[in-house]
Amino acid sequence: MGAQQAGHLAKAGYPVSAYTHKYEKLLELEKEFGIAPCKTVAQAVQDADVIFVMVGYPADVEEVFLQDGILDHAKAGALAIDMTTSSPSLAVRLYEEGKAKGVRVMDAPVSGGDSGARNGTLSIMVGGDEADFQEALPLFEQMGKNIVHMGPAGFGQHTKAANQIAVAGATAAYTEALVYAEKAGLDPNRLLEAIGAGAAGSWQLTNMAPRVLKGDLAPGFFVKHFIKDMKIVQQESRQRGVELEMLDAVLKMYEKMSEMGLDDRGTQALIQYYRK
Amino acid sequence: MGAQQAGHLAKAGYPVSAYTHKYEKLLELEKEFGIAPCKTVAQAVQDADVIFVMVGYPADVEEVFLQDGILDHAKAGALAIDMTTSSPSLAVRLYEEGKAKGVRVMDAPVSGGDSGARNGTLSIMVGGDEADFQEALPLFEQMGKNIVHMGPAGFGQHTKAANQIAVAGATAAYTEALVYAEKAGLDPNRLLEAIGAGAAGSWQLTNMAPRVLKGDLAPGFFVKHFIKDMKIVQQESRQRGVELEMLDAVLKMYEKMSEMGLDDRGTQALIQYYRK
Repeated sequence: MGAQQAGHLAKAGYPVSAYTHKYEKLLELEKEFGIAPCKTVAQAVQDADVIFVMVGYPADVEEVFLQDGILDHAKAGALAIDMTTSSPSLAVRLYEEGKAKGVRVMDAPVSGGDSGARNGTLSIMVGGDEADFQEALPLFEQMGKNIVHMGPAGFGQHTKAANQIAVAGATAAYTEALVYAEKAGLDPNRLLEAIGAGAAGSWQLTNMAPRVLKGDLAPGFFVKHFIKDMKIVQQESRQRGVELEMLDAVLKMYEKMSEMGLDDRGTQALIQYYRK
Repeated sequence: MGAQQAGHLAKAGYPVSAYTHKYEKLLELEKEFGIAPCKTVAQAVQDADVIFVMVGYPADVEEVFLQDGILDHAKAGALAIDMTTSSPSLAVRLYEEGKAKGVRVMDAPVSGGDSGARNGTLSIMVGGDEADFQEALPLFEQMGKNIVHMGPAGFGQHTKAANQIAVAGATAAYTEALVYAEKAGLDPNRLLEAIGAGAAGSWQLTNMAPRVLKGDLAPGFFVKHFIKDMKIVQQESRQRGVELEMLDAVLKMYEKMSEMGLDDRGTQALIQYYRK
């Protein structure tokens, strides 16, 4: 996903340097977009005015910011924007440690998946200082459509967390409806037609249920990343003294899916859990 | 809801007789629509070509069909259509007992709530014989817009069951997202704006979450009826050897809401469960 976003910035005429673990990936980006490949985080960020991060897990975010990373090598006054879906608490910590080192940090996770990244139609949920948001906005506009400044550091991540709660419920919703339909002998395509436009309707039902019915379990969004997101939600909720029981139930099923070897499937593979 | 539907039929020029437990309700219908009030089920159905039933619970459906009811008093060849959200198994049983007595029975539960009934925009999910469906279609068209023949007896109820599963998931989805937002300090209206158009979006989030934020917990659809529907789903699923874990989690919360005295609130009162 980071490659798509770097590509949008380069196509818009910004000079872009990039680092990732796989150097051959960077050579592709150089060829396609004229992006400068870098062998270390330090090399990628040292001359940058604005730094974007898009990695996998909160541990990766910590590494790239803190372990001989962005906060050690970015120039004073640089703006470092983490677009990974990560922990709100970590976002606040990076903002504060950044401040101590003269680096402005923002959190700006996205939704809209691979296709949103490709087509520049991502939703971008931003936490951080207002002036920094305004400065970053023209860059965000190269990547997404619905760009909202949600509040101070961590609030982009909180918004994404709430987004993922709603996605979890809607995913279980259409999946269990399909499982029921299967067991009852209903024509599932006809079911979607009958219920999709009313009170049962959702983006997930409209867009993902038909993929399930075609047997297409390829990842738009990986099971393993969804588990990571739901664990962040669960942890942040519990820290605030609230148990989200639907979310807990859905997370429990996805963790069993992980044990079933479905980590690299798309979230719609939940149907496999019930067919087990 | 039955009153609205009887009204639509009367306004379309059909002669309508009606029975309900509260006779004064019938006098209102007589005044407004010229509907003939009846003191017993027998009186209401004995001369009818087509009979519509809209009551509360499966036990009420059983009563009105079987206990000195429709199957005893309808004329031979009459078409009796149950629009209550009820059990698929009961629908099959009534179809079969009807057949033995020369009464054609269909199940045709609806979705779209009070406003759908009032405006004649209900979705109607029909189970029964094809010829009976064709005969009833002009009448259904007075009441609803999206009218689908889903299969043999019971399949209307199965479709509504699947619909309610999806509603349960989507309801828990937007509610837990709002609860999280509250705990995290997010502006909930801004949250809905940020996430509503994407992968987290649903009819429930768009239509019901704003009611929650206005503190409007008035019933469009009652908590007690939603519990009834979810229990039917759970029972039918278990009979088929499948546990719907999201549905189970949501039903459990609604049962606790019932204990909290929230039976007569709208389904959006789920937020109260988390605020307990």
